[in-house]
Amino acid sequence: MVQQAEQQALQQQFRYVGKRIPRVDIVSKLTGAAVFAEDVKVPGVLYGKLLHSPHPHARIVRIDTSRAEQLPGVRAVATAADLPDKRVGRVVKDEHYFARDKVRYVGDRVAAVAADTREIALEAVRRIEVEYELLPPVRDAFEGLAAGAPIIHEDLLRYTVVGPAKPQGGNLCSLNSLTRGEPEAAFGECARVFEQVYTTQMQHQTYLEPHACVAVYNPDRTYTIHTANQGQFPLRNAVAEVLGVPQNQVRVVPAEIGGGFGGKSIMKIEPAAAVLAKKAGRPVRIVMSRHEDFIGGNPRAAFHITLKTGVTADMRMHARTIDVVMDQGAHAMGAGAMAASVTQFAEGPYAIPNLRITSRLVYTNKACTSAMRAPGGPQINFALESETERICAAMGWDGIEFRRRNAMPTDYVNTAGGVNRSVFTLDTLEACLALSGYRHDRARLGPNRGRGLALGNWNVGGNASGAVIKMNGDGSVNVIGGVVDLSGVNTTMTQIVAEALDVPLERVTVKSLDTDSAPHATNSGGSQVLKSHGLACFKASEHIKAQLFELAVDELDASAERMELKGGQVRVQGEPSRAVAVTKLLSQAQGKTGPIVGYGATGNSPRMPSMAAHVADVEVDPETGQVKVVRYCAAQDVGLAINPMSVEGQIHGGVAQGLGQALCEQFTYRDGQPQNAGFLDYKIPSALDVPMIETTLVEKPSVAGPYGAKGVGEPPVVPVPAAIANAIYNAVGVRVTSLPITPEKLRQAIREQERGGGA
Amino acid sequence: MVQQAEQQALQQQFRYVGKRIPRVDIVSKLTGAAVFAEDVKVPGVLYGKLLHSPHPHARIVRIDTSRAEQLPGVRAVATAADLPDKRVGRVVKDEHYFARDKVRYVGDRVAAVAADTREIALEAVRRIEVEYELLPPVRDAFEGLAAGAPIIHEDLLRYTVVGPAKPQGGNLCSLNSLTRGEPEAAFGECARVFEQVYTTQMQHQTYLEPHACVAVYNPDRTYTIHTANQGQFPLRNAVAEVLGVPQNQVRVVPAEIGGGFGGKSIMKIEPAAAVLAKKAGRPVRIVMSRHEDFIGGNPRAAFHITLKTGVTADMRMHARTIDVVMDQGAHAMGAGAMAASVTQFAEGPYAIPNLRITSRLVYTNKACTSAMRAPGGPQINFALESETERICAAMGWDGIEFRRRNAMPTDYVNTAGGVNRSVFTLDTLEACLALSGYRHDRARLGPNRGRGLALGNWNVGGNASGAVIKMNGDGSVNVIGGVVDLSGVNTTMTQIVAEALDVPLERVTVKSLDTDSAPHATNSGGSQVLKSHGLACFKASEHIKAQLFELAVDELDASAERMELKGGQVRVQGEPSRAVAVTKLLSQAQGKTGPIVGYGATGNSPRMPSMAAHVADVEVDPETGQVKVVRYCAAQDVGLAINPMSVEGQIHGGVAQGLGQALCEQFTYRDGQPQNAGFLDYKIPSALDVPMIETTLVEKPSVAGPYGAKGVGEPPVVPVPAAIANAIYNAVGVRVTSLPITPEKLRQAIREQERGGGA
Repeated sequence: MVQQAEQQALQQQFRYVGKRIPRVDIVSKLTGAAVFAEDVKVPGVLYGKLLHSPHPHARIVRIDTSRAEQLPGVRAVATAADLPDKRVGRVVKDEHYFARDKVRYVGDRVAAVAADTREIALEAVRRIEVEYELLPPVRDAFEGLAAGAPIIHEDLLRYTVVGPAKPQGGNLCSLNSLTRGEPEAAFGECARVFEQVYTTQMQHQTYLEPHACVAVYNPDRTYTIHTANQGQFPLRNAVAEVLGVPQNQVRVVPAEIGGGFGGKSIMKIEPAAAVLAKKAGRPVRIVMSRHEDFIGGNPRAAFHITLKTGVTADMRMHARTIDVVMDQGAHAMGAGAMAASVTQFAEGPYAIPNLRITSRLVYTNKACTSAMRAPGGPQINFALESETERICAAMGWDGIEFRRRNAMPTDYVNTAGGVNRSVFTLDTLEACLALSGYRHDRARLGPNRGRGLALGNWNVGGNASGAVIKMNGDGSVNVIGGVVDLSGVNTTMTQIVAEALDVPLERVTVKSLDTDSAPHATNSGGSQVLKSHGLACFKASEHIKAQLFELAVDELDASAERMELKGGQVRVQGEPSRAVAVTKLLSQAQGKTGPIVGYGATGNSPRMPSMAAHVADVEVDPETGQVKVVRYCAAQDVGLAINPMSVEGQIHGGVAQGLGQALCEQFTYRDGQPQNAGFLDYKIPSALDVPMIETTLVEKPSVAGPYGAKGVGEPPVVPVPAAIANAIYNAVGVRVTSLPITPEKLRQAIREQERGGGA
Repeated sequence: MVQQAEQQALQQQFRYVGKRIPRVDIVSKLTGAAVFAEDVKVPGVLYGKLLHSPHPHARIVRIDTSRAEQLPGVRAVATAADLPDKRVGRVVKDEHYFARDKVRYVGDRVAAVAADTREIALEAVRRIEVEYELLPPVRDAFEGLAAGAPIIHEDLLRYTVVGPAKPQGGNLCSLNSLTRGEPEAAFGECARVFEQVYTTQMQHQTYLEPHACVAVYNPDRTYTIHTANQGQFPLRNAVAEVLGVPQNQVRVVPAEIGGGFGGKSIMKIEPAAAVLAKKAGRPVRIVMSRHEDFIGGNPRAAFHITLKTGVTADMRMHARTIDVVMDQGAHAMGAGAMAASVTQFAEGPYAIPNLRITSRLVYTNKACTSAMRAPGGPQINFALESETERICAAMGWDGIEFRRRNAMPTDYVNTAGGVNRSVFTLDTLEACLALSGYRHDRARLGPNRGRGLALGNWNVGGNASGAVIKMNGDGSVNVIGGVVDLSGVNTTMTQIVAEALDVPLERVTVKSLDTDSAPHATNSGGSQVLKSHGLACFKASEHIKAQLFELAVDELDASAERMELKGGQVRVQGEPSRAVAVTKLLSQAQGKTGPIVGYGATGNSPRMPSMAAHVADVEVDPETGQVKVVRYCAAQDVGLAINPMSVEGQIHGGVAQGLGQALCEQFTYRDGQPQNAGFLDYKIPSALDVPMIETTLVEKPSVAGPYGAKGVGEPPVVPVPAAIANAIYNAVGVRVTSLPITPEKLRQAIREQERGGGA
């Protein structure tokens, strides 16, 4: 109750922040008026199509495009020969946009065509002759690490590497390690040491809209690219790098985006469309089929996690080692950075004095994995929070009490050396317990019914972002920003700016502008838009305010420090009659020094945990192994919810996606060949599989975000697999340590338990 | 020669400024790829058409749109009833966008329709029934001033008036006056006093592309308007005012523009398209026919100028009065401000110690006149410089010497009280004499051939403008600006920014962005873009530079004052080895404080004269009165030509347009009915009528513009009519005091001279 009163007090300070505002784009989306990349109308547009490698690993001996080029209606064919010989990638420059020497996964880009019709384009792709010399594929990470394994990147150590990636040679793309205390020695001081291996699967982002773009080569030799990507600026820079042109010569126009979840953080078809448009002299549209989107996507990586945990008699985790082996796929993409962040993230929601985390990123001949909503998060957390309950079960401890004793406090110095500010682990845990009624001793709800708890965190950083704000002559406001609107970004930014400038919402316009029109801004990913771009918008508003106050000094005969901006007036605080209209000040400024513009920017900011605590109720059919989720409760530390409706939506979606990872989703390969690259064979949760989700928001303002807000998109996906695994354990007494917990696996585990095996 | 050496030295300082760079949009324009407003593709677009008043002056008794609405294919009909009851206008709010109570000229907007096809739209317009009560029209300015004249604006004194307009009641929209010394008394001190009346005609801007726009009413209840206007911001603000919505809810996207010359500075069809789009729920395109564009345009006003000039025996103009009566048309539009500027401008290129200028702006029932290239300039100058030669002829003086003695010096305090900085009257005159070989005693070139000289000025001000510049991670540059590209604006801005940041031209992008994407910027008019927006771009570049230098302080261990930016490096001046790459600094900034953005702005700046001196050679056929211009020389004080090729283009175009005004163009009315609203009857100069034009640029850097540049678009149109009139006088000895000098008028004057009349 105290907390509720606090939250109410917090929200009463604000007019626009903290309110359940419908999305600014709601009518556009609901009426179908929103223009997605595939909808972009450009006269004379051609159909582009890619040729993908059918082999997981092969040397390219020869490519002959002549038969394709001769097909009537074919306007251009492009291969590696049409691009500068330059390796690309965010942290390990390990990839040619079009395969040059080798193909390394089924789906590797070999060539592309542009033609008058889709049918001609498809036929042209078939007519491109590629002579391959087949090589044995590396089928999984351990095979890749084995002595004598086929080498996927012979030149790995000669690649350009930036930032946190640490290529080791062989197939070991990256090796990261962090240590606190002396874990090996500390195990000897423990009452008991637990060891367990957990494994997770490859999961696809399964956004509604496959990758799509339209590229135009302009008469001034620049490129305009309309596309569905999570960040117009990172994409622009990547495309410019591939094309070998300066960044100002590529204009990326963000279309509406039908979901991303990290899968649209990576450049995909855009350079192909661009080079085809240039060769053909006409615009080119490429829309990936669902099949292409699966094989050429960048799914969540499969993890192999070895946990070793030493506990003391007073219920404390005293020592732990975590070894993570990640199946990276054929190229590193953003994954080198991810490996580093996973290494930091694996600390989890706990304070453990002796800890070593080691992560290895291994090349395999599969699709290149990269970011998916909380990349690495739910995989590690599945291990950590399954293990929490496994330890407590073995020791006869109350899992809640165990978590309370080991919970990471705020201002904790993390293993990487940073300070985790504004971390409210216990508040989040307690809020979830209150919401769900979870008790350790009542976690078994009845025959084959169980309730599971998991705590989890996602560490939210912030990328550099800048925002320009201008106040129009009538006091209305336009925000000049270049952030893609995923999960209600523009609505939230509108609220932040309206609050800061005390301008009604309908007088504030926030749009996702193109790369020619906006200052560099962050991509929409990593839950960090609110913190980085939101703060930039807040700062830009404050910059406007400061200028207005300065202008009002003479008019009000008061110092700027004493002023406030309210209802279109600058006033002396506490003296409402001493006021001047903002429109008057704007007009004066216009005459003297020119139009007023505010600028705000944030640099890269360190990652800090946001906590989530989930409780799942499940019902297991022991005959079939089928799991039904009957209730789901989620609490989350959100700092301050700028828009509670939007935050709840993020939690709902995160849980649904987590349920897919927990129970059914799995992108599989056999000998390097994808086995289920489509929705007929790749099962995602439907509305029937997802219960109503109860949420509670823990609002304790963070030091980092605007108005104390925190990033909220990724934390809710993190605890789901562990909560489900723990609920299943409490329902039927078996623990499945491998995701997804399919009916087959669970039925098998139950059978083994019946035969005397068991958890 | 000295001057040439100076100019060369000036230009050698620069890498990109002062160079003959082809326009950045040249390929786009030459290949037809440029997208003009009519070309904008929007799905489901309807054809919009306006209903114009057929009467010059009438009361609206009743409008019945029902028969139009019932026509199949008609999607919306709009009248004044669909808009807030609000008067609009820039300085005198004297107009409802759709006529509400009265129509005041043939072409006044009464209603508009949107339909599936152009044919249906035309038929629907015909079916709108309007009952008028006819009123007697005011046919010209003197009729409007006469006692008992019909009153066009009964409520004139109750209208909202801003800035320099001074409505007087009756039909007198504005009365402005400026006085220096005591002109009436001073006439008594003169050796001789001359009086003469000069009259000029209504001239249309005759841009290639008629007004066109496409309006979209968006699902979020905002408007997007693609249009060919000279200023997206003034237009946006005007449209928002008409629609009664905040400015942020109207996004104006500038299309390519097929000429403006002031005629596209005024809101025209955009509100009609917007309100129709809202009513129909579909986008609406309106393209004015050439006929509509003439009757509904805003041509150059006809002037009646009474000059009284007293000269002393030592060839000085000692006293002058100038009375200007302007035929304003039915609404004031921007003309109140124009009246004030004309009053200032009428001082001309001379320093006259006793001077009174009076201007009266009179409502008449004709098209609303407004800005046309150097509005008021060539009209007044025709009088001033015809009179110069008339006086010299009467007194037996050398016109060159007379001009030298009376020329306005630089830093002259003008009659309005401002200081005319960087005014190089004599340099310009001498440059033209050198170029043309003009001598007063040899101005008669042979039988019916004469050479005429005119000096002229246009006073260039500057409107408030802001520009954001961002440097991309690779050091390339995007300018975020919202200025329409007329006469090579974007090319010039590219040169300014490339020079300031020492970045190659192809790594600088300047586009004309929409009103959501750019800070408020000036319209492209009044020759002031270079001075106002160019300076904003220059300042924004300097802002970037200052930030880079600050970032380099630690790296270079030097103070920012000692640094320079060269070739992508910040260096310590004079020590090229102490350097750091800009890309490195940018990356550091990105990590720490965020993306770097520069902002530059200029406020409104006072008008200062730019000088031009022209010499025309003509050949007159005394039988027909036909004038052939056989040679034309133009010198202009341009401060510093950022792009000499572009400046010369402006001079060529200005002279051509001036020749039209001098010799043939005239938009005529009879009893309030337009007589020649189309190119069949309205004669403009063709390629056959315009000789090759020789130019010389006087480059003495101005204190006001970037790199010393001055506005150049309007001065070259100013001296043309006077130069032609003076050449005709020197050819055949007759002086025509009324523009245009048609063959009919000239033949008549020659006949009268033959009959014993004469100059």
